[in-house]
Amino acid sequence: MFGGIEAGGTKFVCGVGTSPDDLETAQFPTTTPSETLAKVIGYFKDRTVRAVGIASFGPADLDPASASYGHITSTPKAGWANCDLVGEIKRVLRVPVLFDTDVNGALLGEARWGAARGLQDAVYMTIGTGIGGGALVGGRVVHGLVHPEMGHLRIPHDPRDSYPGNCPFHRDCLEGLASGPAIEKRWGKPARELPPDHPAWPLEARYLAMGLMNLTVALSPRRFLLGGGVMQQPHLFALIREEFARQLNGYVRHRDILDGLDEYIQPPQLGGHAGILGALVLAERAEQQSAATGGNA
Amino acid sequence: MFGGIEAGGTKFVCGVGTSPDDLETAQFPTTTPSETLAKVIGYFKDRTVRAVGIASFGPADLDPASASYGHITSTPKAGWANCDLVGEIKRVLRVPVLFDTDVNGALLGEARWGAARGLQDAVYMTIGTGIGGGALVGGRVVHGLVHPEMGHLRIPHDPRDSYPGNCPFHRDCLEGLASGPAIEKRWGKPARELPPDHPAWPLEARYLAMGLMNLTVALSPRRFLLGGGVMQQPHLFALIREEFARQLNGYVRHRDILDGLDEYIQPPQLGGHAGILGALVLAERAEQQSAATGGNA
Repeated sequence: MFGGIEAGGTKFVCGVGTSPDDLETAQFPTTTPSETLAKVIGYFKDRTVRAVGIASFGPADLDPASASYGHITSTPKAGWANCDLVGEIKRVLRVPVLFDTDVNGALLGEARWGAARGLQDAVYMTIGTGIGGGALVGGRVVHGLVHPEMGHLRIPHDPRDSYPGNCPFHRDCLEGLASGPAIEKRWGKPARELPPDHPAWPLEARYLAMGLMNLTVALSPRRFLLGGGVMQQPHLFALIREEFARQLNGYVRHRDILDGLDEYIQPPQLGGHAGILGALVLAERAEQQSAATGGNA
Repeated sequence: MFGGIEAGGTKFVCGVGTSPDDLETAQFPTTTPSETLAKVIGYFKDRTVRAVGIASFGPADLDPASASYGHITSTPKAGWANCDLVGEIKRVLRVPVLFDTDVNGALLGEARWGAARGLQDAVYMTIGTGIGGGALVGGRVVHGLVHPEMGHLRIPHDPRDSYPGNCPFHRDCLEGLASGPAIEKRWGKPARELPPDHPAWPLEARYLAMGLMNLTVALSPRRFLLGGGVMQQPHLFALIREEFARQLNGYVRHRDILDGLDEYIQPPQLGGHAGILGALVLAERAEQQSAATGGNA
């Protein structure tokens, strides 16, 4: 069995298994690091796992060459800044551990068992309180210099939209214009209370489609999965696909885009289990890497 | 020795070697496919190579699973549409062949011997008649659904810039606003005739920096190399770095960006040899892939 930890700001989900069919989970509220990690370790002490994957909230250090690899870094969440998540788990359980972000965890879960099953190149985006994303390129999660978070893409600001944007860094980047809080501030109501025929939605679709277009031009994924609170409006997918085709305007001549947008832009399929299942994929990779490096990973 | 072919719209460069130190090249004008390929094949017939890499103009089919892999596809260049470049070379020389775009070739050359030496994650952009780019992620060239060409990123159109953009698909995407022809149409003179203190340059830097910011947010490369005709203005680099820092506004907190922009955004180093050297890297990979698959690649 592999072990997975989905480390979130409000709860930690722990799981063991090898797939959705044999997955068993438990969850604990996120309190202090010592209390929370004691529960996590208690959970795994009773179960034998070959390796552990951690899909974590952040910001976190994902660079295996860094001294603070596997640490939560600068979070405002009390007590968690500089918490050595990987170190603690490794020290006690003595198995290979691999660490990535929560979004990349969901991406890996969906790419193995969900809406991007079998694809080597896919993007997972979550549109909610913020906008975050992760990308798979040739089967590997894109990290680079830092994890590319994708939410802060610069896009044209619709001239008819007088809302200035709410990103503290860039004001009207994608996150500043299209996150849940931006929708709420622009229209005076949370997204979930706006009816499907509200003008909020075509505008939201326009901004999100511009973000997807930029990611298409930069990464050329084989599929986009869009999740998060704002995407819990099924009518929004059709609007985004329409805007995406209109904006791309025939530039990318591939049948998956010209004729297959219903698949190309779609919701994730694993719901709340994507992250913990992705953590199992990370555990499997941790074991492979450890074997390849003679147990030193 | 490895063989390399840099297939361009005006000339074909052929080379043999293993590095810049032993590289030997010859070049032929691009005329008809049969005439040009006869010269290329004649060049390699006299030399023994273990594998051949081709860095080609396009559009071309880069999908190894496709029936038209290694073909030039829909070029307006007379006679070259549907030309089976890889098939012709393979049939005659009977060695492993690997194929990629000219931009990706330059990227691979620079990542091995040039300005991105040793980096696993880098972006190469060329700003000239058009804007094109290639990315290395974890040491591998990003392909995905189609090769991501990067030039058509959507960015905010500066409200003080009345030039509408000249992209036939998107009007004011990055290429439509910042390519060489866009500069010439906006200011009535080619870029190379505009003095360093001309207002064209801060605007150009603003647009290019927005493009780089989007690629940073999407891909998180460890370095950007900017080449092409428009970048033959050394003063432009300083302006782009300044704009990039201003726009990113502290969002990515990594020393390479906070303190190292002179390295983070820089010119390529191999000049006219980047493409042919990248073709040698492709040849090396062709041989490795062939060995890994028992000679079937």
